[in-house]
Amino acid sequence: MEVVDTLKNGYKIIQDSEKFKFGIDAILLSHFAFNQIRNNEKVIDLGTGNGIIPLMIAKSRANSIVGLEIQEENVELAKRSVELNQLEEKIQIIHGDIKAVDKKFTKHSFDVVVSNPPYMINEHGKQNPTEAKSIARHEVLCNLEDIISAVDYLLKPFGKFFMIHRPFRLPEIFSLLTKYKIEPKRMELVSPFLQKEPNLVLIEARKNANPRLQIEENLIVYEKPGIYTEKINQIYSSFV
Amino acid sequence: MEVVDTLKNGYKIIQDSEKFKFGIDAILLSHFAFNQIRNNEKVIDLGTGNGIIPLMIAKSRANSIVGLEIQEENVELAKRSVELNQLEEKIQIIHGDIKAVDKKFTKHSFDVVVSNPPYMINEHGKQNPTEAKSIARHEVLCNLEDIISAVDYLLKPFGKFFMIHRPFRLPEIFSLLTKYKIEPKRMELVSPFLQKEPNLVLIEARKNANPRLQIEENLIVYEKPGIYTEKINQIYSSFV
Repeated sequence: MEVVDTLKNGYKIIQDSEKFKFGIDAILLSHFAFNQIRNNEKVIDLGTGNGIIPLMIAKSRANSIVGLEIQEENVELAKRSVELNQLEEKIQIIHGDIKAVDKKFTKHSFDVVVSNPPYMINEHGKQNPTEAKSIARHEVLCNLEDIISAVDYLLKPFGKFFMIHRPFRLPEIFSLLTKYKIEPKRMELVSPFLQKEPNLVLIEARKNANPRLQIEENLIVYEKPGIYTEKINQIYSSFV
Repeated sequence: MEVVDTLKNGYKIIQDSEKFKFGIDAILLSHFAFNQIRNNEKVIDLGTGNGIIPLMIAKSRANSIVGLEIQEENVELAKRSVELNQLEEKIQIIHGDIKAVDKKFTKHSFDVVVSNPPYMINEHGKQNPTEAKSIARHEVLCNLEDIISAVDYLLKPFGKFFMIHRPFRLPEIFSLLTKYKIEPKRMELVSPFLQKEPNLVLIEARKNANPRLQIEENLIVYEKPGIYTEKINQIYSSFV
């Protein structure tokens, strides 16, 4: 069933309640990247799904935002949301494969890449029987190296890459980014509760930059069960 | 000037107040590794300085502990501390270079490697004019890859490596460990205060293990300025 939700920035998003709806990940990533996007920058979101990230960063200083998506139903949904908000001038949804970005885009033509990729290695845990959810959650169609290799192709020198992922894969993430000379510059771990182990990690990396990682204080989601922290309330209310 | 300090485990350590005295790093690393050392394991500490780590883990289940140190004055100091505690059966201090471990040790002959290496890349910040301090703090005589390559040479398959370092170098740390197939398995960030950025990181890695990093909750050092947290008091009082 289709539902239309309104984001805090006023834009509407069409979501299919049977499929993958956006979660806290997309919000945190959009917030993490938002203020780092400079005037006139060209942004691309790899694996945009229903287009939630382009919609959430539509009021950033970006000149244009591309959402790349492989699943046709998602592409349709995202395109309709863009039209519904009359954002065709700013956001372009493109049907295509992360593994074949060279067929759709010019090399080194973006200032910023964002991505909320599937977290789970194909063998991790049970795969969801609904194909669309499975593709969003598991590395069925592309793996982490495919994504980072696409980022390498797309980014201009000193271009920025923003990603959210699971901390248990940090060694692989850092080692692949380093391999492609997309240097991790900033990291923020997200924990469900204060003094609990983090279960998400936000990463900002910069192509050809010098190595030096800045670690932000952990972002805590809940004050107590069901009650968000002030910081999360702030992100949700001022931003989403 | 020489001083003799007594550790909480009863052992004494001879330190030179003009030189590099042990700090919280050595304590946190010893505590981090202590319970992970199993019966009859052979342990080596790379860059042992005045021998503080072998002395702090002397009551672990280790069968034997080697402290490798390149600076002769430190070797002398460490040897005299070992004798003072009559630990010659358990701890052996060896004068040698991390870059030439193959000259002193058999390949793949240790179960556990620990190291509190110099944190600073040679160009980072001002180097201390006193040579001994400079060598302990800056990568003057060996760099991170020299150390990890030595760990690779020394560790048995599935052997464990424990290290403390600066979080700003995490991408390089993870990428080198991954390169040598010494898989990062556990990480604990240390922050001076709650909700402050971490300035130390403890890492446990395991040779030939499958990739999956577990992140512990952050360890907080101070409750308020000058007052340790309960956890740090616990570590200091029960352990050092």
